[in-house]
Amino acid sequence: MNKLLIVGTVAFDAIETPFGKTDKILGGAGTYIGLSASFFNVQSAIVSVVGDDFPKEYLNLLTKRNIDISALEVVNGGKTFFWSGRYHNDLNSRDTLDTQLNVLADFQPKVPQNFQNADVVMLGNLHPLVQSSVLDQMESKPKLIVLDTMNFWMDCALSELLEVIKRVDVITINDEEARQLSGEYSLVKAAAKIQAMGPKYVVIKKGEHGALLFHEKEVFFAPALPLEDVFDPTGAGDTFAGGFTGFLAQTGNISFENMKNAIIYGSNMASFCVEKFGTERMIALEKTEVISRLKQFKSLTHFDIQL
Amino acid sequence: MNKLLIVGTVAFDAIETPFGKTDKILGGAGTYIGLSASFFNVQSAIVSVVGDDFPKEYLNLLTKRNIDISALEVVNGGKTFFWSGRYHNDLNSRDTLDTQLNVLADFQPKVPQNFQNADVVMLGNLHPLVQSSVLDQMESKPKLIVLDTMNFWMDCALSELLEVIKRVDVITINDEEARQLSGEYSLVKAAAKIQAMGPKYVVIKKGEHGALLFHEKEVFFAPALPLEDVFDPTGAGDTFAGGFTGFLAQTGNISFENMKNAIIYGSNMASFCVEKFGTERMIALEKTEVISRLKQFKSLTHFDIQL
Repeated sequence: MNKLLIVGTVAFDAIETPFGKTDKILGGAGTYIGLSASFFNVQSAIVSVVGDDFPKEYLNLLTKRNIDISALEVVNGGKTFFWSGRYHNDLNSRDTLDTQLNVLADFQPKVPQNFQNADVVMLGNLHPLVQSSVLDQMESKPKLIVLDTMNFWMDCALSELLEVIKRVDVITINDEEARQLSGEYSLVKAAAKIQAMGPKYVVIKKGEHGALLFHEKEVFFAPALPLEDVFDPTGAGDTFAGGFTGFLAQTGNISFENMKNAIIYGSNMASFCVEKFGTERMIALEKTEVISRLKQFKSLTHFDIQL
Repeated sequence: MNKLLIVGTVAFDAIETPFGKTDKILGGAGTYIGLSASFFNVQSAIVSVVGDDFPKEYLNLLTKRNIDISALEVVNGGKTFFWSGRYHNDLNSRDTLDTQLNVLADFQPKVPQNFQNADVVMLGNLHPLVQSSVLDQMESKPKLIVLDTMNFWMDCALSELLEVIKRVDVITINDEEARQLSGEYSLVKAAAKIQAMGPKYVVIKKGEHGALLFHEKEVFFAPALPLEDVFDPTGAGDTFAGGFTGFLAQTGNISFENMKNAIIYGSNMASFCVEKFGTERMIALEKTEVISRLKQFKSLTHFDIQL
């Protein structure tokens, strides 16, 4: 079984959408990536940090999914990273109400020895220096390194971000961030400029409008599944990344053709995530549902024009 | 050869985009639909009206494309419909600067006798009573009736619009208009409500984010082709409608499966339209380019997950 190393926050979120609000619930990029990747036959580990206020029940939830949490540091007397946000009516934009870095402020990631030879590394959205530090600790070159980031790091740690971007094979980024990073409005031009920064593959996430995969002159598009209701978009991008890397790690095939399939798997997983608050849907999700919805993706996009 | 009857404006447009501006150029829904449909093996006619200020050269352009313009009325002493608009930087929204209805104000469409048995009728965006009047003049029930409309008619002629919507098989509408017409934010729910108003098929156009086709519980999605530059979106929706109805009229097959192909053909035609100002690109377009870009649509969306 191939190894997937995940780095990302494990956190508390408090979310408000037009449909309701939550108290502090389980969240964080690392959590969503891990839960999503657990639907694939991979050996995965999360490198992260929490405070001793983090419930044992949440840790159990991850280990029950066969996620190795030996490198999920618990800081005694520390408090877990907390984010709170309110989504606007269209669910496409949100305001951050509160961010408490807490134990994340001094986070030094430690890659467990048995994952220093991981086949696939998924660098979730974190400070670029934390992402770099993880790569520094790998004893062999991973088959594939995927990085997710956000505009926040472009604003406050751009040179460090550009350094780590040079070292990765795939970057996942949303449309506005791709425009900011490249200075190009056209996503085709943006993807070309970002490829020139290092990553051979650029995934541009457009939320409800799907995702684009760029590689050299080629491009692939996966729609988001049209849903009756989108309840809470929190974690959708990370869940996408978990499906994407989970599938690539499982198959061990990093060709462009297989990466197209991985984009579909990622979109498929994300389509569940948004159906309930936070991680709720991903925790209840069954493998049979995953397969059944893949069929919907096929009929959603397949056409039969003979050329 | 099957017959396609097109009703829609033939007009002058003056367009401003971030990339430049035009004087009065050839425009109008009927024009775009006709030019786009002319790439298919169909016998087509445009029912419309212009003033005697409308250049002979534009009329020749339509007849050279084998479009029957015997029902394109020229009003002596009248002025052609004129629209002027300015697009915002993202090209997704625009301000109307000027609208002069002119001869359109008293337009009474007259369906030529040899098109009263048309196989496919494309009702371009016009007053719902004009659209109804065309249907009243058909001597036999067309195989397929497609209607395009816009928010303007929902605001000022809703009951007439609902009456004509009842009589059509397919409605094409953009996402915001679908939300306005149905009162539902979710496009899945909006499409269900609009189907209940009459049309068995609902096409929701999302501009650069593609188009959705709904039919009963089924849904199909066609992306817009990612382009290096979108120059001018004017007429893209009408060009889409022309490709959609042109292909359906050519094949004479109105099954859901074939309608999926028609959505791809429509998107393909629209991808050319936006590359230049106004009708410029559609006029220069070659059939070989159309075929070649269809291959791009295939590689853009095709994936190979075995289930």
